[in-house]
Amino acid sequence: MVFKLNNHLLSSIASSNGHGEDSPYFEGWKAYDSNPHHLTENPNGVIQMGLAENQLCFDLIQDWLENNPKASICTPEGVNEFREVAIFQDYHGLPEFRNAVAKFMEKVRGNKVTFDPDRIVMNGGATGAHETIAFCLADPGEAFLVPTPYYPGFDRDLRWRTGVKLIPVDSESSNNFKVTREALENAYEMAKLDNIKVKGLLITNPSNPLGTMLDRETLRSIVSFINEKNIHLVCDEIYAATVFSQPDFISIAEILQEDIECNLDLVHIVYSLSKDMGFPGLRVGIIYSYNDAVVSCARKMSSFGLVSSQTQHMIASMLSDDEFVGKFIRKSKRRLAARHRVFTYGLAQVSIKCLTTSNAGLFLWMDLSGLLKEKTFEAEMALWRVIIHEVKLNVSPGCSFHCTEPGWFRVCIANMDDQTMQVALSRIRTFVNKDVDTKKPKKTLRWQGSLKLNSPRIYDDFINSPHSPMPQSPLVRART
Amino acid sequence: MVFKLNNHLLSSIASSNGHGEDSPYFEGWKAYDSNPHHLTENPNGVIQMGLAENQLCFDLIQDWLENNPKASICTPEGVNEFREVAIFQDYHGLPEFRNAVAKFMEKVRGNKVTFDPDRIVMNGGATGAHETIAFCLADPGEAFLVPTPYYPGFDRDLRWRTGVKLIPVDSESSNNFKVTREALENAYEMAKLDNIKVKGLLITNPSNPLGTMLDRETLRSIVSFINEKNIHLVCDEIYAATVFSQPDFISIAEILQEDIECNLDLVHIVYSLSKDMGFPGLRVGIIYSYNDAVVSCARKMSSFGLVSSQTQHMIASMLSDDEFVGKFIRKSKRRLAARHRVFTYGLAQVSIKCLTTSNAGLFLWMDLSGLLKEKTFEAEMALWRVIIHEVKLNVSPGCSFHCTEPGWFRVCIANMDDQTMQVALSRIRTFVNKDVDTKKPKKTLRWQGSLKLNSPRIYDDFINSPHSPMPQSPLVRART
Repeated sequence: MVFKLNNHLLSSIASSNGHGEDSPYFEGWKAYDSNPHHLTENPNGVIQMGLAENQLCFDLIQDWLENNPKASICTPEGVNEFREVAIFQDYHGLPEFRNAVAKFMEKVRGNKVTFDPDRIVMNGGATGAHETIAFCLADPGEAFLVPTPYYPGFDRDLRWRTGVKLIPVDSESSNNFKVTREALENAYEMAKLDNIKVKGLLITNPSNPLGTMLDRETLRSIVSFINEKNIHLVCDEIYAATVFSQPDFISIAEILQEDIECNLDLVHIVYSLSKDMGFPGLRVGIIYSYNDAVVSCARKMSSFGLVSSQTQHMIASMLSDDEFVGKFIRKSKRRLAARHRVFTYGLAQVSIKCLTTSNAGLFLWMDLSGLLKEKTFEAEMALWRVIIHEVKLNVSPGCSFHCTEPGWFRVCIANMDDQTMQVALSRIRTFVNKDVDTKKPKKTLRWQGSLKLNSPRIYDDFINSPHSPMPQSPLVRART
Repeated sequence: MVFKLNNHLLSSIASSNGHGEDSPYFEGWKAYDSNPHHLTENPNGVIQMGLAENQLCFDLIQDWLENNPKASICTPEGVNEFREVAIFQDYHGLPEFRNAVAKFMEKVRGNKVTFDPDRIVMNGGATGAHETIAFCLADPGEAFLVPTPYYPGFDRDLRWRTGVKLIPVDSESSNNFKVTREALENAYEMAKLDNIKVKGLLITNPSNPLGTMLDRETLRSIVSFINEKNIHLVCDEIYAATVFSQPDFISIAEILQEDIECNLDLVHIVYSLSKDMGFPGLRVGIIYSYNDAVVSCARKMSSFGLVSSQTQHMIASMLSDDEFVGKFIRKSKRRLAARHRVFTYGLAQVSIKCLTTSNAGLFLWMDLSGLLKEKTFEAEMALWRVIIHEVKLNVSPGCSFHCTEPGWFRVCIANMDDQTMQVALSRIRTFVNKDVDTKKPKKTLRWQGSLKLNSPRIYDDFINSPHSPMPQSPLVRART
């Protein structure tokens, strides 16, 4: 005999919807899932451009694997290590894994910095790494500042089970969405007025969704800010190797090596192989903290999400191959640059601009504000639905990233082959041309600098509701 | 310039020691780590018997891998799937993985029950699975009842980051540590008096450390108890395939198939491949819940500790091979039975008894109460230190499992080869004979039934202090 479910029997976390899966942004995923594009079998299907995956270099990986059978514990050459690897669950990780990851992180940063393998803490993807950092640094009700626009998954990763809050820091298109000291101070003061204790600042560098990097001056200003306030700085650098053109990427690690006043105990880096290598399924997340207590605590917490030792073993072997790693990083940048160039050029031909300061990431930050019926987020959502259902591209609207100006969209360009990209591009161009022909004079398509709303908090409901915006379907992807 | 660490900058979780690593039980691990036994290179070193690992069947696994190169995405035969597997991060898991795990769980339970692959939720080991269950079912301050003696890692897994409490349920040697309705009711009432809301009962079946199974009657009584109280039942069945002799294992799933009154929404199984297959490094933890809302919530939470898709792929392939799985389960039981027989026989010859109702697990529950200077836990700890430092065996004292009677020790026997086991056995025998010759008349070694203390809560400090007893070093092992 079966009784009915009593919801009060579950925890508050389980009974609420802090995970955010049921947000309106799920619509794009449903559209894609029910009608996925295929070049020959379903040429009119929806193209997935909401997924920040790096699929451009799997040929290099595959070659390497075929030439290095010992990397696997499932090959005749490597099977003798199966036993030792299968029982290895030391939460420090395989020493060769930590060494290889530290070295890889250095290479990705142009060998301008050094990382101590003993500070490498593994985690279940960047998703797990961010939650662990939040558990280590803040109590329920305490907060992190986060410059907007930011990766919507943060609303789940840092908040859901920890009870920690995120406070958006405004940015605007007039200065290319830069993180300014003024905006940081404002957000900090606002939190203080609300009696919220700010425990840290979370920056993503290079930025998802902007594809921009923080310059040296901004990074120095951020270091000075967090030291002045005596709060933590968490630097998400999971897109470090996707910087495809000048200027070079500047890691927070590089700033710390300068003669700068900084309490190192306040600084923590989150890294991952999901974007730079394109291995989100392998769940390799890394916390690199300069704070001994955080290293120690995070390592203990990593027991809840260790990287499979089978995967550690393979990654250790692959990332220890200097020649391969060097070639991979070079070629990956070159292919990303080409993809970026073709796509932005194609858009420019129909007068669609993308954020021009972007030189990193697996996406474009596209400005369609000229196509909005009015400068509101309702209009952005309306346009987004047209793009999903008529243009049949699953892109992500800016409001899902807490962007404060309507009309921006994140368009992922590295999770498909060249032909599919061309189809996507031609669909956008056709749509824009049609839209322009029938509805608007062409000039409105031009980027107009700051489009700051009078009421920039029109989307507060999204931020503050438990329904955190999630343009990526967590049903399908843990971290995109 | 570097400032000093301000501890108040961290979270309460990070600043406290809820993880329990610094418990006195760490001493055994330090002794082993600093002087590990090796048959030829360090024959006088400490033998590790604190680790519930299953190393008896790796030859079978290795054979299978050599014959099934397609199971790996790193072989010439399987590498074409690398791309699809590496980018796969659907939190449902690879469908073939869920199917194979569900089928394996059925086989381990003698095909007497069926499991729905759509209710299989993956997690980072049983460690992650238990934490997830706690997050789903209880709010901070709420509690689970746990029959003693129990796996000390529960104090970390269920409590540390969730704020949930564990309330021990007493058992006694006079009835072979059975879980009685009376003890359950007592614990429940005591919690009520303390104003603690009990949200569930956590049972481990087969038991770690007892190596016993719950019989059908006890299981029915437990189901009736949790339904009467309207609380959850979490069944940790991670040792299901280690039942090496009659009677057969009875899963809670089998009881639910009987004509019994039960709210299925209250029942959840935790499973893992760490013990039954011997793969703790691969971090395959499973939650199987009969409650739709828990399946849904736990699946979302699994994003923090997904199983590497590389590992899912291999496991799916291996566990789908019916012939191999059948042979593995049979041989593993046979080898465990042999190991158990030899060890208990060797101990019996020097009049050391082990719990005779044990027919499962990777360990013995050894009664050394006759060797205690007095019937206290201080005396148990003193004897334990002698065993570690003089006998040079890292076994685990009963008090670390919250056992209410002093003098019991868990001795792991499946993480070593036959020769090492013989060395361990002969060390115990020599020690006991010497101890008997010099100190005590032999009769005191006989098991004396109930040795219940007048003050069974003498070890309360361990339970209630943040220093949760941890006989296994979490520094080295995430889950043992």
